[in-house]
Amino acid sequence: MSVIETCYRCGTRYDDEFRVRCDCGEPLWIDAEPTTAAWDERRDRLGMWRYESLLPIDRPAGVARAAGGTPLVRTSGLDDVAGGRVFVKDEGENPTGSYKDRGSAVAVPHAIDAGDDVVGTVSYGNMAISTAAHATSLDRECIVFVPEDISRVRLELIAQYEPTIIRVGGEYGALYEDALELSDWLPIAALVSDDPARISGYKTALFEICEEFAPETPDVIALPASSGGFASGIWLGICDLERAGVIDEPPRLYLVQTAASDPITRAFEDGSTDPTPLSPDETGETIAHSIGNPDPPSGARALAAVRDTGGAVVSVSDDEIRAAQRQFAVEGGFCVEPASATTLAGVSRLADRGEVSAEESVVLVPTGTGFKELGTGGTDVETETVHRTGLADRLESLLPRRAD
Amino acid sequence: MSVIETCYRCGTRYDDEFRVRCDCGEPLWIDAEPTTAAWDERRDRLGMWRYESLLPIDRPAGVARAAGGTPLVRTSGLDDVAGGRVFVKDEGENPTGSYKDRGSAVAVPHAIDAGDDVVGTVSYGNMAISTAAHATSLDRECIVFVPEDISRVRLELIAQYEPTIIRVGGEYGALYEDALELSDWLPIAALVSDDPARISGYKTALFEICEEFAPETPDVIALPASSGGFASGIWLGICDLERAGVIDEPPRLYLVQTAASDPITRAFEDGSTDPTPLSPDETGETIAHSIGNPDPPSGARALAAVRDTGGAVVSVSDDEIRAAQRQFAVEGGFCVEPASATTLAGVSRLADRGEVSAEESVVLVPTGTGFKELGTGGTDVETETVHRTGLADRLESLLPRRAD
Ligand SMILES: [Zn+2]
Ligand SMILES: [Zn+2]
Repeated sequence: MSVIETCYRCGTRYDDEFRVRCDCGEPLWIDAEPTTAAWDERRDRLGMWRYESLLPIDRPAGVARAAGGTPLVRTSGLDDVAGGRVFVKDEGENPTGSYKDRGSAVAVPHAIDAGDDVVGTVSYGNMAISTAAHATSLDRECIVFVPEDISRVRLELIAQYEPTIIRVGGEYGALYEDALELSDWLPIAALVSDDPARISGYKTALFEICEEFAPETPDVIALPASSGGFASGIWLGICDLERAGVIDEPPRLYLVQTAASDPITRAFEDGSTDPTPLSPDETGETIAHSIGNPDPPSGARALAAVRDTGGAVVSVSDDEIRAAQRQFAVEGGFCVEPASATTLAGVSRLADRGEVSAEESVVLVPTGTGFKELGTGGTDVETETVHRTGLADRLESLLPRRAD
Repeated sequence: MSVIETCYRCGTRYDDEFRVRCDCGEPLWIDAEPTTAAWDERRDRLGMWRYESLLPIDRPAGVARAAGGTPLVRTSGLDDVAGGRVFVKDEGENPTGSYKDRGSAVAVPHAIDAGDDVVGTVSYGNMAISTAAHATSLDRECIVFVPEDISRVRLELIAQYEPTIIRVGGEYGALYEDALELSDWLPIAALVSDDPARISGYKTALFEICEEFAPETPDVIALPASSGGFASGIWLGICDLERAGVIDEPPRLYLVQTAASDPITRAFEDGSTDPTPLSPDETGETIAHSIGNPDPPSGARALAAVRDTGGAVVSVSDDEIRAAQRQFAVEGGFCVEPASATTLAGVSRLADRGEVSAEESVVLVPTGTGFKELGTGGTDVETETVHRTGLADRLESLLPRRAD
């Protein structure tokens, strides 16, 4: 492609000779042919609100408008690992860095519409961060119930939005039911992981994926699974599209759990309709902090989604997660959290079993950015040090000399 | 709005009675009227490639496809502070969390097209992270030149994409010229901050902003300023739109610098055409790590942009930056890095001086996410602890009882 560069200061023009700076010393820029072609219509970036007619509320104000509309990127560098044609739907590119924003964008305004003065949430991770951000952007109080032993790191991420944070002593897992009960008689809407308005928000991720594939449908969609809420939302989206006659054959839903806490995988393998809650001695530590709910409130619905679409549930180890996280970054250029990396590790296992074939389209959904957990200085990085004056020699030994 | 909920398992339907779970125990979801209205056309999320015809390369593969297309959100909670009608253009919602991705998306493929086997960059911040991600996603080598004393945190963020990292001894500031020179005779493209292809990528942020305001034009756009590269790109975009006849009156460009290192502000106040490089004893420490270049390569061009559009350059202190960062989060729901928070602090100063009026539209561009620097556990967060069994009582004292 021919490139014309000009100098803003002296007006010198350089044709087909790419250089950074002009002879006058100033930096150059690249000319473009004036055209109005790109502005034929006023364009709103609607994000998920493109599907307003399929959501239970009108498009709200605030940070909700920044939710969704995330990119889907063909990422062939991951094909070999995944055993299919990989597409990455990067949900980290949401205002608080996770898919939870799609849910909060609907659930928080929905609760306010319903007359609740205060929203609450039982989470110490991405859901807490997202709910607090959406509440404060609409000038509402938010109460976040966190475990008594929450880490300082987690606390800092949530506290930036200044919700009321209550550390809860006793069994944290029981809070799901407690919160629903309190919602009944106190003017607080407890936006739990499977709040129906939240689930409606999640289905917009499926709509966006299917729209980019239309008139085709992707063969496989892989999600991390914890409470089962996201899987429920994706399934609801599939049901909507099937009822509207937009798709015939649903994508197969693959859910991936951390082996450290995988009640949905166990139920899938047993052929059970409902997952059995895991006791503390049946769960372990994992780097996939964002997932690993031992008693998933939407677990049965997630299993129904998988069976309805002909998918599967699979668990992966921390070692597999670490390897997959590295592959997302190095082969794809995506910084994903460990919980999100499970998608690649899980599909890789399924491909080994012959459940995914090379020509199939596989959408991996990293649900959250890795930037929240990275950069704590906990990793040793090997580097060499070269003095500025020795740089040319060192580079020359690393690189072939340019042929002129 | 009337809401119908149904149970996926038993089929029970609940009209206008919002509840989380069905009487059968399973979670409910919200019905939507089947419609194909939202799918009238296949929709690609093109991001910045919507303006491919105005860019020097064809849309490339890889993570470049995830760049741009960021949301613009009316954020009235910041109006009082900013003294105008605030819109937030959240550039943190890019694949590596900063606007640098728009530049890397063009500059990296452009260098590869030009025959360079390896791309290099002189940065230890967002530009390094972004360039390394874009290079690896196209399966190319990247060499990142960082200062000898780079922090472990920064190193970890860059190293995830596995570039070759070289710590450079000697004067780091001189590396800009060194890198350009090395580019001349070694097969490495040094993608410095004002590489012309990079600058072309930045102009797409301006196109997106103007498209959402069309047929109006925003009154003010405020950016953080360091090398002056981003300001150059925004100005180039304005020039493109003026030449194409799309806009008549340009938005006023306000650039904000950290008072710890503000050569562009000094030159603006002096009426100089070119900034004077600051010596080490004229600069100080700042929390705004991403900005503060003492010798900005595009400084003169940034000044020209400001004067051409009737804008201004202003500096702010770390205390003002801290306050503005908190306001972005608490009033807007946006987690921005300190360098990005300068935009709000700067506009606030300009409004105090009477340079912004209340009815004007003011676009603040937080250029990078705050999640990269947050969550290190360095902040003390005040919380209370309540045992689960005492939660109802504690909440009742915090909240009025629901009126039934
Ligand atoms: Zn010149
Ligand atoms: Zn039921």
